[in-house]
Amino acid sequence: MIKKKFGNRVRELRTQANLSQEKFSLLIDMDRTYLASVENGRRNISLENIAKIADGFHITIEELFKGM
Amino acid sequence: MIKKKFGNRVRELRTQANLSQEKFSLLIDMDRTYLASVENGRRNISLENIAKIADGFHITIEELFKGM
Repeated sequence: MIKKKFGNRVRELRTQANLSQEKFSLLIDMDRTYLASVENGRRNISLENIAKIADGFHITIEELFKGM
Repeated sequence: MIKKKFGNRVRELRTQANLSQEKFSLLIDMDRTYLASVENGRRNISLENIAKIADGFHITIEELFKGM
């Protein structure tokens, strides 16, 4: 399901970037527990927060959803 | 801003598909006034509703965000 797939993708990109949840959440100004629940596929995340995450990885939203 | 860009993209794809807001909202089982506010850039739409719109156009979310 889409929330799970999205969460896995975010975790994948974050670990590739060698960032902890703590560091990445600070970087994008998002609550760490919120980021954790996104990665666990438990959040129906909004467009603005999706954009925040893409910005944090310096990629477009299109790239964020690549291959999903 | 991202909500505006997304709304414009949805409207563009919908009109390319020759669908009215009424027809497309019925097709994807979304309230027509909600769809209208998305197209007008007034909604911080959620991931599941983004997926619904992509499905309605028979494209991936990646394609939905293409060039945005």
